[in-house]
Order: sequence, then structure tokens, then C-alpha cells
Amino acid sequence: MTNHIIITISRQYGSGGRLIGEKLAETLGIPFYDKELITLAAEQSGFSREIFERMDERASSSLLYTLSVNPGMAGGLTGIADLPLNDKVFLIQNNVIKQLADKGSCVIVGRCADYILKEYPNLIKVFICSDMTDRIERITKVYGVSFTNAEREVQKYDKRRSNYYSFYTHTKPGIAANYDLCLNSGQIGIDASVEVIRAYVEGRRRAAKK
Amino acid sequence: MTNHIIITISRQYGSGGRLIGEKLAETLGIPFYDKELITLAAEQSGFSREIFERMDERASSSLLYTLSVNPGMAGGLTGIADLPLNDKVFLIQNNVIKQLADKGSCVIVGRCADYILKEYPNLIKVFICSDMTDRIERITKVYGVSFTNAEREVQKYDKRRSNYYSFYTHTKPGIAANYDLCLNSGQIGIDASVEVIRAYVEGRRRAAKK
Repeated sequence: MTNHIIITISRQYGSGGRLIGEKLAETLGIPFYDKELITLAAEQSGFSREIFERMDERASSSLLYTLSVNPGMAGGLTGIADLPLNDKVFLIQNNVIKQLADKGSCVIVGRCADYILKEYPNLIKVFICSDMTDRIERITKVYGVSFTNAEREVQKYDKRRSNYYSFYTHTKPGIAANYDLCLNSGQIGIDASVEVIRAYVEGRRRAAKK
Repeated sequence: MTNHIIITISRQYGSGGRLIGEKLAETLGIPFYDKELITLAAEQSGFSREIFERMDERASSSLLYTLSVNPGMAGGLTGIADLPLNDKVFLIQNNVIKQLADKGSCVIVGRCADYILKEYPNLIKVFICSDMTDRIERITKVYGVSFTNAEREVQKYDKRRSNYYSFYTHTKPGIAANYDLCLNSGQIGIDASVEVIRAYVEGRRRAAKK
């Protein structure tokens, strides 16, 4: 493994996965991409940012309208003009994710990046989960979700992300054998989770030198 | 968390999980139980060691003969006389695992210990997996399995252990959300895997002090 590493973070809603990814990137001194992917995809495609926000991590549906797009504007992608809008968004993000991975080390959150980059040799696939009670505590404190709605909110996101992931990768999220490292962040918290991932990254770096 | 910690290691065949558990126990200075569970269960039950070896991590089957047993000899278990032999073995091992966990810190490999001890507050549930190529390399080198039979051997053990785990826990092995930490040992090797688990254990110890 060269110094060029790509770390993908898949995460359950309310597990702190995004924050863990952000702190990890900071600790390793490499770029971090979450919502930034939306800005980049919008810039490359000529689609509005709102479209990417609305479609973000949602599975395709035949009921969704399709939007005509000039392939020249869609990040160089051809043949996508007749696809449903979600699929266009996925393909454009797919393109952006590959460009970022080619450019240099980074941490990428969500958006099936683990699947999109599966052939990259220096890929480290991480999954962050957490127990329901910890997730409820987190989203009520951090996102201000009311306690009454919290469990329903977690279930809604679980279902949406699972549908999205399954639709594009043909496998369910959270199957240990599909990742390098899966971590329950609930009991140890954000900083210790970053430390565990760093220990894994160190292991990969040492193994590559042998 | 007090200093009393129980670490259970579930593992795919050929992932090096047993060795990782053994080295982890050594590093932490706590006892390690794998085949030792068989000896203890045999001693407590009055069953022969051969019975435990034959039944080890195998699911129950209605086709299996049942063996009469004196409940007084079966680790103090009552009402198990009419159960199929596999279930008797499971219950006796269950008893032994709980006794060990009550006694003090330890590392326990396999035998649904993560499920058996699920109510223990200081339980750390680890799952070790590895890619097929790495598992084949390991079992041909370490266990002397012929390369021709290796993949079939891995599949046979995967199926057997999965049946055993599902039979007694009503869930499949390797679902990330059911563990604290899941680790693919293939690319980083045994020692680095031990380091990653240690980083998690450290995190739990720090969190308990807060």
C-alpha cells in the first residue's frame, strides 16, 4: 500500500459515523467528503444542487419522473439521458467518487462508495453502527429530533439507506464480511472509534511495507 | 466497566480468529478458552470428552440419538435428560461459559458465547472474518488442507457453524450490528488484528471511567 488510501464510511443513522469520518480525516490529514459530494456532483453535472439533495441516498423508483440531461454536462457520462433521475444522480456521484479516489487519499461517507470503489487496492471499508438507545440519544441531542419521534426517525432512515444500498449494490448493508472493519460506536464514543480505525489503518500500512 | 471484561470471539473458519483470541488473551494477561471448554464441560457433565468433540459447534438434528444422562452429573442442569444429545452438549457448555464469565476476565472463542453472555454488561463481542483467498491460504499452510479441497472445506465449515449459530441464537452470524467489533484479518494479519481489538478494549475502559 502506498500512502494513497481511500477510507469509505458506511453508517447507520445516529451512529456518529459522519463525525467519526470527519475526525479521522482530520487526524490523518486527508480530505473528507460527505455533503461535499453533492456540491461537486452538482457542479460537474449542470443539475441543480437541490436535485442532489432531494435524491441523496434514495433508491430509484419507477414512479419518479425522468429529467432530460445533456450528457456533455453530466460529468462526461453518456447514455444516461433516459434513466430515472435517481439513477442519473447515482451515476454522476459514482463518477465524482472515482475522480476523488484517483486524485489522492480521502475519507468518503455513504453513497455506496465502498461498492463503487471495490476494485481499488488501497480501499479500507468501514461500517459504523450503534444500538437503538444510543442512536436515539444521539439524534435527540445532536439533531434536535423529539424523543417521541426518534425511534420512528431511525427506522425511516434505516429503511431508506438499506433500500438505496441494496438497490445499487445487490447486497444488504451491515454484513461484516463485506467490510474491513465494523464498529459499534455507542459504548466507546467518537474519539475512541477514530482510534480503533486508526489502529486498523496502521495495520494496513505495516502490512504493505512487508 | 470494572477490570472484569469478557471478550467473545466469533470467527469464520480460516480467518485466524482462534489465534487472534489466544494472542489477545496473552497480551491482556487473562485466560483463553477454546477447546478448553470441551475439557471443562466433559469434567462437569460426566459425559466423555469424545462426545463434546463430536458434537462441537454442530446444530441439533432430530435424527441424532439421545443419550440418557444423570442430571446430577450434567453440571447441575435438570430437565435435560430427554433432549437430543446436541442440545445437552449446548446446555452443558452454556453452563460452563457462564461460570467462567462469572469467575473473571477471559477470552472465549465460538460456541455462541456472545449470545449466551448477551446480558453481561462488560461483554465485548468480536467477529473475525477474512476473504476466501486468505482463508484458503491459511488453512492450506496452517492446517495442511490440500489446495484442491480447501474452498470446499471452508464452505463446509461456514455452513456448519452458521447452522449451529442460527439454531441456538435465531440470528445469522456475521451481522455487524450484533457485535461490538468486526474485523477482516486477511490484509493486516494476526498481530495487527490483536492491536485493533486492544484499541477497542482501551476505548471501553476509558468510557467506563467517565
